[in-house]
Amino acid sequence: MTISKEIELRLGFVQEVDKLKQIMRRSHLFDGSRLENTAEHSWHIALMAIVFAPHACAGVNLERVLGMLLVHDLVEIDAGDTFAFDIEGMKSKVQREQVAADRIFGLLPSDTGNYLRGLFDEFESADSAEANFARALDRLAPLLANKNNQGGTWKAHQICEAQVRARMDPIRIGIPALWPFVEQVIGVAMSRGEIAP
Amino acid sequence: MTISKEIELRLGFVQEVDKLKQIMRRSHLFDGSRLENTAEHSWHIALMAIVFAPHACAGVNLERVLGMLLVHDLVEIDAGDTFAFDIEGMKSKVQREQVAADRIFGLLPSDTGNYLRGLFDEFESADSAEANFARALDRLAPLLANKNNQGGTWKAHQICEAQVRARMDPIRIGIPALWPFVEQVIGVAMSRGEIAP
Repeated sequence: MTISKEIELRLGFVQEVDKLKQIMRRSHLFDGSRLENTAEHSWHIALMAIVFAPHACAGVNLERVLGMLLVHDLVEIDAGDTFAFDIEGMKSKVQREQVAADRIFGLLPSDTGNYLRGLFDEFESADSAEANFARALDRLAPLLANKNNQGGTWKAHQICEAQVRARMDPIRIGIPALWPFVEQVIGVAMSRGEIAP
Repeated sequence: MTISKEIELRLGFVQEVDKLKQIMRRSHLFDGSRLENTAEHSWHIALMAIVFAPHACAGVNLERVLGMLLVHDLVEIDAGDTFAFDIEGMKSKVQREQVAADRIFGLLPSDTGNYLRGLFDEFESADSAEANFARALDRLAPLLANKNNQGGTWKAHQICEAQVRARMDPIRIGIPALWPFVEQVIGVAMSRGEIAP
């Protein structure tokens, strides 16, 4: 039996995305032992989607949310991880990531490639209930990492309250039930000087 | 506003499972640079589920498959990774992992905890089309790792052809379209002496 071209393309994509395991984020694991990579981050927030699904807007399609979270950072294979508070890097982020998305999702047969590219674009443009829920989880992860690391990236980069609140706002929008927790974490971090006034 | 007990339990689970990022497998990344951890492995095969969904049995529920793959190895937080070809370790694996599942899924409110425990048990007992599809992907991952690492764990542990074929059989069952590729990989690895006759 021969291996079809279409199967080869899917296998090629699976092989390519292994590289996401080597893209390092700015956040540390919760025990502070090392930096987190983007593949394990993507796993963590996909699992969070199931855990917080009872608090998603009614009618949110969890299968689409999971797909979104599994691919939302694949572009970092080419574009790298852009630190959320890096003003210069954030300016060019969209353009760099669109080029990366063209290449990476373009490795797949068009049915699956178009589906996943659509989920990626939807996440980026935050224009659906699924995207809003997914984006909330993507912000919850670094909040938890910083909470567990004495302020983590907030403290290391002297991020102020207004910046943190703006960055966490997708949680208020996507999972309102988590907002009291976010307020609590920000309040404690401020009282400890981990977030600048 | 106060934080409900139910939200606290969900956050506690999310915090606990961060530990999966520190459970190391026997397989290396495809470029051989380091061992793979179980969290990033879980991400990889969940994404593979979307990529190979067109080759799943008709009617397979992808949302359930994704949930299964995201939690199938959580028990390793307590029970550790048991090497597939470790005969002694495999004997006690089921019992050790059931105790771990009781504790870890028991951290969650019962709605989500029971749902995820059900998916874990279903994966383990391989008694649904979803479980068969998910198990195929869980076997495809180390096949690809070994293919990319000059035989990897097969060569390192002098695994023979019959053992590899038995280990890979879930791929034949769950994703028959991939079997010609598996045959090809096994054939090449044997011709290079990476799998023992």
